[in-house]
Amino acid sequence: MASSTDDLSRRLTEARDVADKEVQKALDEAGGLPMYDMLRYFMGYENPLKTPSPGMHGKRTRSALLLLIAEMFGGSKSAPVLAAGIELFHNFTLIHDDIEDGDEMRRGQPTVWKEWGINHGINAGDAQTLLVDRCLLRASGIDSDGHAAAELMNETFLGVIEGQYLDFELTEQTLGDATVTEEAYLEMIRKKTAILIGVAVAAGGRSAGTDETTTQQLFTYGESLGMAYQMTDDLVSIWADEKTTGKAACGDIYERKKTFPILYARDNGAEDTLLPLYAEREPLTEGDVAKIVTTLEGVGAKEATVDCIISHIKKATGVAMSLPINQEDKDLLAALAEKIAASAGIVQI
Amino acid sequence: MASSTDDLSRRLTEARDVADKEVQKALDEAGGLPMYDMLRYFMGYENPLKTPSPGMHGKRTRSALLLLIAEMFGGSKSAPVLAAGIELFHNFTLIHDDIEDGDEMRRGQPTVWKEWGINHGINAGDAQTLLVDRCLLRASGIDSDGHAAAELMNETFLGVIEGQYLDFELTEQTLGDATVTEEAYLEMIRKKTAILIGVAVAAGGRSAGTDETTTQQLFTYGESLGMAYQMTDDLVSIWADEKTTGKAACGDIYERKKTFPILYARDNGAEDTLLPLYAEREPLTEGDVAKIVTTLEGVGAKEATVDCIISHIKKATGVAMSLPINQEDKDLLAALAEKIAASAGIVQI
Repeated sequence: MASSTDDLSRRLTEARDVADKEVQKALDEAGGLPMYDMLRYFMGYENPLKTPSPGMHGKRTRSALLLLIAEMFGGSKSAPVLAAGIELFHNFTLIHDDIEDGDEMRRGQPTVWKEWGINHGINAGDAQTLLVDRCLLRASGIDSDGHAAAELMNETFLGVIEGQYLDFELTEQTLGDATVTEEAYLEMIRKKTAILIGVAVAAGGRSAGTDETTTQQLFTYGESLGMAYQMTDDLVSIWADEKTTGKAACGDIYERKKTFPILYARDNGAEDTLLPLYAEREPLTEGDVAKIVTTLEGVGAKEATVDCIISHIKKATGVAMSLPINQEDKDLLAALAEKIAASAGIVQI
Repeated sequence: MASSTDDLSRRLTEARDVADKEVQKALDEAGGLPMYDMLRYFMGYENPLKTPSPGMHGKRTRSALLLLIAEMFGGSKSAPVLAAGIELFHNFTLIHDDIEDGDEMRRGQPTVWKEWGINHGINAGDAQTLLVDRCLLRASGIDSDGHAAAELMNETFLGVIEGQYLDFELTEQTLGDATVTEEAYLEMIRKKTAILIGVAVAAGGRSAGTDETTTQQLFTYGESLGMAYQMTDDLVSIWADEKTTGKAACGDIYERKKTFPILYARDNGAEDTLLPLYAEREPLTEGDVAKIVTTLEGVGAKEATVDCIISHIKKATGVAMSLPINQEDKDLLAALAEKIAASAGIVQI
């Protein structure tokens, strides 16, 4: 697997560079109004308004994935502009999410609304969605495969916004509410996070002419990757230390987020401990959080989460092996799936 | 002209009905999530979440105009879906504008954010932009004229968001600031309001196959209509009574909006009266407002605004006469332009 991992890293880096240039081009074409400099700042590009830290740039994961998959299926003319579209869309959702969640910092820098106010945050985000549409319309004008991929992306983008709605609904309810279920949580993260990775992969293939069955398989591969990615995030928020994640230890618990381990524990014997602590309004103490973690571990919530991640990774790997691509590319996609789990430093496949 | 006016009314009503059904179809296809009911409420359709008043429906002016013009140029397959797109876009901007301006009521009903909170307001608006894109992508897939019209619309939509940015900039500055000029104000309303009417007209023609010159003429016609419309709004806010407009008399002055009559007056001898009153933080009294109106009239700001409106109407009418359509349709477009001015009850052409 070592060669697949090296190859993966090299090809992803190449794809990232291409994607990054496309994103920058889309912003450069937009114009010189300071509104676009707010977007350049957020996307990590130099601009006269505010210099972003190198960390603001982001990893261009979704766009690189789209280009990589298109390449595996023989390449497509519309993949570069579609890649810019998915990257701009992902970051647009972050600009508005930061307002909705009141988050003042992202990637170690002030968020758009924090820097320029909520009105500019909403409006600059709106400008970015229109740049997304511009990318999709361009792809649509290139060829019928580009059009089909663009329509698939638009449909999925709407699903992501639905995922955000579902997240609001879950957040507004108490942990004891009948609508707050494992299934509801999994459906929320599927829509909010996983399907965007699904469509990065699927649109890459579709733009290169994959048929319906293969496009669906690609979607499933990416969606499984996305589910594993989000659940790994939930896992490390509780069971990895700050040094590994760069985020506050047990941040999700302090925020009383109703993630998978919490819901699993609630449904498997930890209800009496969790419900009162989650119903309170006061901040949780260090002691409360330690008690919650011990309780989660006592009912096997960590193992259940790991099992769930492993099953998504296995699903992704299985689908990768059935794709009509060469063995080297199959191995590369399998290596990518396993990398997500390994990144947690916890899950051993 | 009486027959043109009757004909105009009949054909606009027909176009409105078609456009309205397309908008409703776009929302119905979107799905049953309550998020879409928020949009149905705002667009004036029945839904299980909140019944809208009949006034919420809006007049579907932009979409009706798009269909009417497409019809004048022989019709197009993509016009209905483009009409839905422009109507959804216009209303999406209102959903986010209401948040940005803190407006709690629109068309006599609570705004989306007022009813469901800012987060839902932002997110439901985002969903609506994706429905706009869906319409444009569909049009793009119908034929090359539909694609060209969709790209023109996307480009203009981005300009509308730029207009909102320019409005923020003007609002943030004092009346005495060097960047607050008549030209800056006219450019702001051109982008924020006029070009959307311009593109309704232009995209209607373009979708039916008009060439570049005619498309540009159509844009100019609509843009001139839009300028006249917005400046008429500025005029009646000061010089029409509440019974005529349904809005508070002199609302723009109480809000210290820097509209055309104010800027004209400032530059033509009323600086010493206006600047101190606009620099204060306390609400303007009835006496202050009366003094401002007298001052505006004293320096000819009303006449200057009327002249400006008339010149836009004449420009629109002139362009209409040069379009490659039959005389009956030319007269109809001229009647439409004159109707805007007449609606103020002040401007006599």
